Amino acid sequence: MKEFFNPRSVAVIGVSESPENMGRSIIANLIEFNYDGIIYEVGHKGGTLFGRRIYRSVSDIPDQVDLAVILTPAKTVPGILEECGEKGIKRVIIESAGFREYGPDGVRIEDQLQSVAKKYGIKFIGPNCIGVMNMHTGLALPFTSFKNVFRKGGISLVTQSGGVGISYLNVLASENLGIAKFASIGNKLAVNENDLLEYLIGDPETEIICLYLEGISDGRKLMETARRSSKPVLLHKSNIGKEAKAIAQSHTASLSSDDSVVSAALKQSGIARFKDRETLVNYLKILPLPKLRGNKLAILSRSGGHAVIAADACEEAGFTLAPFETRFISEIEKNFRAHVIQLTNPLDLGDLFDYQVYAKIVERTIMQQNVDGVVFLHTYISATEGDASRSLFAELEKISYAHRKPIAICVATDEEELYRLRQKLPQPVFTSPSDTIYALALARDFRHEKRPEPASLPKLSVDTERAKGIVEVCVKEKRNPLLVEALEILEAYGIPVVKSVFVEQEDDAVKEAARSGYPVAMKIVSPSISHKTDLGGVQINIRNEDALRQAYRDMMANIRKRAPEAQIEGVLVQPMIQGGRELIIGAKNDRNFGPTVMVGLGGIFVEVFRDTSLRVVPFDERETDSMFAELKGYPILKGARGEKGYDLHRAKEVVQRVALLVKDFPVISELDLNPFKIMPAGEGGFCLDARMVFSK
Amino acid sequence: MKEFFNPRSVAVIGVSESPENMGRSIIANLIEFNYDGIIYEVGHKGGTLFGRRIYRSVSDIPDQVDLAVILTPAKTVPGILEECGEKGIKRVIIESAGFREYGPDGVRIEDQLQSVAKKYGIKFIGPNCIGVMNMHTGLALPFTSFKNVFRKGGISLVTQSGGVGISYLNVLASENLGIAKFASIGNKLAVNENDLLEYLIGDPETEIICLYLEGISDGRKLMETARRSSKPVLLHKSNIGKEAKAIAQSHTASLSSDDSVVSAALKQSGIARFKDRETLVNYLKILPLPKLRGNKLAILSRSGGHAVIAADACEEAGFTLAPFETRFISEIEKNFRAHVIQLTNPLDLGDLFDYQVYAKIVERTIMQQNVDGVVFLHTYISATEGDASRSLFAELEKISYAHRKPIAICVATDEEELYRLRQKLPQPVFTSPSDTIYALALARDFRHEKRPEPASLPKLSVDTERAKGIVEVCVKEKRNPLLVEALEILEAYGIPVVKSVFVEQEDDAVKEAARSGYPVAMKIVSPSISHKTDLGGVQINIRNEDALRQAYRDMMANIRKRAPEAQIEGVLVQPMIQGGRELIIGAKNDRNFGPTVMVGLGGIFVEVFRDTSLRVVPFDERETDSMFAELKGYPILKGARGEKGYDLHRAKEVVQRVALLVKDFPVISELDLNPFKIMPAGEGGFCLDARMVFSK
Repeated sequence: MKEFFNPRSVAVIGVSESPENMGRSIIANLIEFNYDGIIYEVGHKGGTLFGRRIYRSVSDIPDQVDLAVILTPAKTVPGILEECGEKGIKRVIIESAGFREYGPDGVRIEDQLQSVAKKYGIKFIGPNCIGVMNMHTGLALPFTSFKNVFRKGGISLVTQSGGVGISYLNVLASENLGIAKFASIGNKLAVNENDLLEYLIGDPETEIICLYLEGISDGRKLMETARRSSKPVLLHKSNIGKEAKAIAQSHTASLSSDDSVVSAALKQSGIARFKDRETLVNYLKILPLPKLRGNKLAILSRSGGHAVIAADACEEAGFTLAPFETRFISEIEKNFRAHVIQLTNPLDLGDLFDYQVYAKIVERTIMQQNVDGVVFLHTYISATEGDASRSLFAELEKISYAHRKPIAICVATDEEELYRLRQKLPQPVFTSPSDTIYALALARDFRHEKRPEPASLPKLSVDTERAKGIVEVCVKEKRNPLLVEALEILEAYGIPVVKSVFVEQEDDAVKEAARSGYPVAMKIVSPSISHKTDLGGVQINIRNEDALRQAYRDMMANIRKRAPEAQIEGVLVQPMIQGGRELIIGAKNDRNFGPTVMVGLGGIFVEVFRDTSLRVVPFDERETDSMFAELKGYPILKGARGEKGYDLHRAKEVVQRVALLVKDFPVISELDLNPFKIMPAGEGGFCLDARMVFSK
Repeated sequence: MKEFFNPRSVAVIGVSESPENMGRSIIANLIEFNYDGIIYEVGHKGGTLFGRRIYRSVSDIPDQVDLAVILTPAKTVPGILEECGEKGIKRVIIESAGFREYGPDGVRIEDQLQSVAKKYGIKFIGPNCIGVMNMHTGLALPFTSFKNVFRKGGISLVTQSGGVGISYLNVLASENLGIAKFASIGNKLAVNENDLLEYLIGDPETEIICLYLEGISDGRKLMETARRSSKPVLLHKSNIGKEAKAIAQSHTASLSSDDSVVSAALKQSGIARFKDRETLVNYLKILPLPKLRGNKLAILSRSGGHAVIAADACEEAGFTLAPFETRFISEIEKNFRAHVIQLTNPLDLGDLFDYQVYAKIVERTIMQQNVDGVVFLHTYISATEGDASRSLFAELEKISYAHRKPIAICVATDEEELYRLRQKLPQPVFTSPSDTIYALALARDFRHEKRPEPASLPKLSVDTERAKGIVEVCVKEKRNPLLVEALEILEAYGIPVVKSVFVEQEDDAVKEAARSGYPVAMKIVSPSISHKTDLGGVQINIRNEDALRQAYRDMMANIRKRAPEAQIEGVLVQPMIQGGRELIIGAKNDRNFGPTVMVGLGGIFVEVFRDTSLRVVPFDERETDSMFAELKGYPILKGARGEKGYDLHRAKEVVQRVALLVKDFPVISELDLNPFKIMPAGEGGFCLDARMVFSK
């Protein structure tokens, strides 16, 4: 990867003398950014541009070329790549569009690219991208011409879309945020986000890694790579819903993933996930400051109104505004010109106009034990207070670093001054009190210094062989497991299931119910039916023989009517479990991230409130705890208002056993324990019904 | 009110020659904004400033003065107000701070102000504010000096906090939004937001009214006034939670209101409520455009990535991206230089670089039947495309008005160009694709052209006299109604209650249960107990005599232990109601907005999911429908997944009857029907228990 960002020479292919030529913008950028290597211009028409000869082909270049950038019509690219190969160029960036994102013809050209690259051992980025930038060498390869308004710094940016990449670059520039490297990866045919992430984790100039992705190339690889990063990894992931699907497909040929799986996976691997640019950039503004190590903020404000707004945001974000120490208050009081101010937190600096005193108050505030960070809300008139304010900001930055606590600055001033601040100030500032607080909340919630340990499931004793026997029979017979089989597989994995007896005839059902005692439940057993309830294949709360016979006949009539083709093997008789609360425990094998496990409170909680929690397998005990704790209905399970709770200990173990099961048997594409009855604390729980689907 | 904004002469009191004097900033502003009246400077030290004599007192001014602005220490203000009165000045703005917001001394000075004002018939704004502005006359009275970067326009702004007011003015200026009038009202001692709202509704120069408030002076008045407005009324209300309380109190002496009541009240009176400045300003950017009349958007974008982001936002905001008509597609295809683009919605303009064609495509798009509004996402390089882009934006605005559908423009470009756009462009533009969509969603959801009719409760037959009898007894005896009495009051208002028989002795309870049939419930009746369950005063599901006797003794033991002082009158025996679902129907008399009614699903739905819905009384049937419909658990009540729903018709009627009851009897400060059992559709429902609290 390093070679893409540090070439000693670059050949730009697709350059012409025409003023509309896009290749010339690349050359213009290299000149504007003062690229420290040698630039070669290539274009089949030849000519001269910017005082350089345009070679008709790379083969005409007399010297060795480290990196080639291709921006010619799609159909010409394979041939040009071949020429690059002949020339011995090992790194190529293909910026041209018109490939897979435009349909089958494009796919064929992409296949050609792959084979040419393989033949010559070429690594390439793209196609359909705007190339890379290295702010530290002046390598600037996008085909839209920039002014070099960007700052050098520690933020590296990888974006799938060129347009979004440019808007990120512009916003970083206008917010005083320094850039290290930039890469746009487009169709990700060869190099993808994981290659770049890996590289940037090790890159000494990169301190923070930001990604914009419309599709994730290899979810598990992304998780593994990100876990190894001691640098913050921020991801703006779009292409979430159905409306975006078509355009993302035609834009960067990205498929969308189940968004709840994406969110869980990113969280589990310590990646901060964002759904818009604004929030991500807000977070970037807070990241360079010393870490926020607690939950207690102090707000100092020249405008009481902004303090009110910030205090509301604090409450929403779960911050505490700790009262100030008495000693501190008496010290402050001495410094105030007018003794009319209320010494509360937020502190209204209203009557105080001395910038020296501001700095002292901020320093004394941040030194307090019960203050983890300070928010300084500064309303000022640029004409009279601009210079003093800018000096104060510089002073506050020093104080922040000296005391190793963040001081976030939020200004309210005129547009002209804001523009000036954005051009000249060493650090970023906020312009919205609420955004300042929300950025601090992100800084509190994502802790990059403690990156998640590589997760693993706890050791659990299971009978893999027994499960394997049943699974193999079903796989051989190319069918999904029957309910009895599914329950037996669960049992083999130590998951408690309600005692279920399989019978083939009505009379046998009657006998079994008499033996086990009423009330009972009865469920259809058929290889072709997986959603039994919908077809009337489940009868519950059967209280005596008459009721059972009636229920049996009703059930058979239902199935014959609604699924006439279904082959019925018999029925399952189970005792009714009284009390407890229904959970749904589910598992799904995600195309991109592999097995996942979901839990939710049963029935309306999942259906109406969509209150579920999901994790990518494997996950450890702490992650299992958080999985339950993040359910909105968690207080119900734990026991709300002094009520006795349910057996969470056992439920968590079951979730881990389900995770182990789907990990051991990737053939299981879907599994639902629905309901899993969780009994009061200490009394365990039972799976009452299960649906297991194998992948084809 | 008009006189505050259109004085022919202004006296600024508190002016001195000192460079630190704040009064001089007011004079500077009047000069900078080219005020079209006569300016008088007043200050007890005299002298000259800006070529004018500083009068030592208003009484020294030889001419008549229409408006006085006072900016002198708080304790001097009553005397100065007296002088204004003597001088015959009828409108005064008091900008000085140091009143009620600083404690009891300030309250005393405020009382003096009130009596002086009364004596002379003076109307005044403030104290503790930054005055008013009228962009159309150059009246600019804030004591912080501005450059006149503001545009004249139709937005009028009323803010309680001066600092927040200034930041709004700055943001409006930088977003190309034109201002009509501005008023900062501070402590609102005399003139409050309702006076200004009333005035601005009738003011011909005002098209949109924006308020920033930390406290609401008179909620019901605000509702009534806003309902009469045919102009959009936007309110940014802060001071929501406990963290903000203290600072808001010391800042503008504002008390916080129950925020759910505030939100309901604003919605019911057609006020668009905002919790931050950013969203409000976003909405202001969309308001001047033609109204969005439907839910179908078209997105045209030069960057596929921004189109993906916008499409995700559309889905989240509930917009539909309708497919384009075939004829339109073939027409577009002819215009494209390269025929590689996918003709989807969002439409990626990727390969097309002709600005004339852009305008044509946008026009053809907006002319389509299934397009209610267009989002144009424009990524461009200012150096080469700046001029063309700005012409295009002007063209698009014309197209938007010609076809009476909104075209929202969102740009991605460099900071310098953004600054230029903000200075020079006639219309506001967006810089975030998601914000653009969310602003359109607000434009869709708030429909100011259809302002809510003055609401009234539907006609319902009730026995007011019967209720009045019981209420009067309780009021006379200075106590809350007993459970039996509360249930009887409800019954008098046509609210079905479960049959409840009051008995005084254990044996009578046994007899009554035998008569009505087991199972029964039993509840304590005591004037001093309102939360019966918490004290063990409710026993349910009693199945026979033994159980009843045991339950009776348990209950008495509980009460004796937990509330030894409580005087026990007896118990209530009720049949157990089987089936149905529990609702909570509550009412509260809000200090500021008067009676309110709340509904939620019972138990954990309210306690854990906080799923409740509230309205300010009165409200009509449509409002009652929406009250239920906005519950997250509404599908449960309506009948989810093909299940039969509950008797919503009856439940809604009960909610209206409760509203009528608390409206007729303002003495009821709190009322809970908990639970109200709602039975399956057609079977009605019953109030099983009630708690009614009278105001002291």
